[in-house]
Amino acid sequence: PNTIGVDVGSTSTKIVLLKQGEIHYKIRPTGWSPRDAAHQILEELLQEQALSREEIDFIVATGYGRVAITYAHKAVTEITCHGRGAAFLVPETDTIIDIGGQDSKVIKITPQGKVMDFMMNDKCAAGTGRFLGVMAAALGLDVDDLGKFQDVKPASITNMCTVFAESEVIGLLAQGTPKDAIISGLHQAIARRVAAMVKKRGSYEKVVFTGGVALNQGVCRSLEKELGTKILVPEYCQIAGAIGAALIGQDSCPAQS
Amino acid sequence: PNTIGVDVGSTSTKIVLLKQGEIHYKIRPTGWSPRDAAHQILEELLQEQALSREEIDFIVATGYGRVAITYAHKAVTEITCHGRGAAFLVPETDTIIDIGGQDSKVIKITPQGKVMDFMMNDKCAAGTGRFLGVMAAALGLDVDDLGKFQDVKPASITNMCTVFAESEVIGLLAQGTPKDAIISGLHQAIARRVAAMVKKRGSYEKVVFTGGVALNQGVCRSLEKELGTKILVPEYCQIAGAIGAALIGQDSCPAQS
Ligand code: SF4
Repeated sequence: PNTIGVDVGSTSTKIVLLKQGEIHYKIRPTGWSPRDAAHQILEELLQEQALSREEIDFIVATGYGRVAITYAHKAVTEITCHGRGAAFLVPETDTIIDIGGQDSKVIKITPQGKVMDFMMNDKCAAGTGRFLGVMAAALGLDVDDLGKFQDVKPASITNMCTVFAESEVIGLLAQGTPKDAIISGLHQAIARRVAAMVKKRGSYEKVVFTGGVALNQGVCRSLEKELGTKILVPEYCQIAGAIGAALIGQDSCPAQS
Repeated sequence: PNTIGVDVGSTSTKIVLLKQGEIHYKIRPTGWSPRDAAHQILEELLQEQALSREEIDFIVATGYGRVAITYAHKAVTEITCHGRGAAFLVPETDTIIDIGGQDSKVIKITPQGKVMDFMMNDKCAAGTGRFLGVMAAALGLDVDDLGKFQDVKPASITNMCTVFAESEVIGLLAQGTPKDAIISGLHQAIARRVAAMVKKRGSYEKVVFTGGVALNQGVCRSLEKELGTKILVPEYCQIAGAIGAALIGQDSCPAQS
């Protein structure tokens, strides 16, 4: 069957089409209207794949804005979808770290991708993509550029709070601290905060890192340092939740499989 | 005796001179050098009062930057000084709410101004003056102007985090929400956060509100609403800690009193 997963995140909306086992996808900033963002990329994806709406057997919506996708056959929480997606992308994963634009989650799963335990932070910008976004602006950089800097001895960022850390960064710049040292310090800061969440959930063996921030290799290396283990970033790290949603869609239409 | 209290806060530095029982004071932004800020206003105050350094019997330093005041005879924590200062300004106070530029504290004291219990937040910008500073900037206003707005039906600010609440305010502005409604919502938000701290410390009867944010009457009224009690803002609300320090200085030189 052809199924679609729509993951409406606070920052970006992702759509995955599972068509004869192949993954096709699109990502767009969520903006003010989650509904419009999803609609646009859904139509684009169908057109590219020469599919009509009628040829889609099942649509599963997930993410904070999933209620806006009224045409979905089913809405599933992002925790469940992320678990399923990550287990599919990296078999035998036991721990998922997902850092998105405005939240971070740690999910413990069984080898089948069933969620056993999780922890989520969406109340505090520290430890989320937003933290890096604020800091990139203070440094006069694009947030996507942060990951391109080399690791150097990190400047110490003592404030956990995004607002206070931003002032700290401005102070470090004024003192002439090199940008790469500040960026390494910021990567360490976010990694420490998220690693603390991971450690609270017990032991870990195979750790997968997903979400938009997983594209930043500096954060990934810092997380590896903090956790003392190798971390896998799947190619489809940004769309793990949408893949999970599309897979759950497959389960939901067994008649045609 | 003539004593001086220096309160080096993260945002502003306050100096109080107790001269024959009279209070004289000066306030200056702390800036990058707490030492310089304090030095400048100390000299100005002495000059205005026609006193030489030798005529000062005791100097007590307090606040986060107190260690920079190496010429002080004594350094005392801000909690102790605030307790003492507030008890002096408003006899029979049992609860002090102090909201400064970068922290907030709740202090429970005996009628003599001895600290029995306290709670401090200096890790999270929410619930501090910084929260209001960030929001004033988003509104294109000076932070001192926020208190001049009338109370109206508050716009609901659902995010506690300063960073997320700032985005919320920008969204409300884009939707055409009037500024006074947003400001009332912000006052309510900070009041709720601080009121929760107060309630955690048990019952309260006579509540005093100090710190720079106490100058904002909207926050004061919101706190009154949240706590269901009248709140007193002493005239010297910004310098309660420095007054306490100067009073502790008086105790420390009994020979000359
Ligand atoms: S610590 Fe800072 S980033 Fe976190 S909730 Fe508080 S204001 Fe927001």
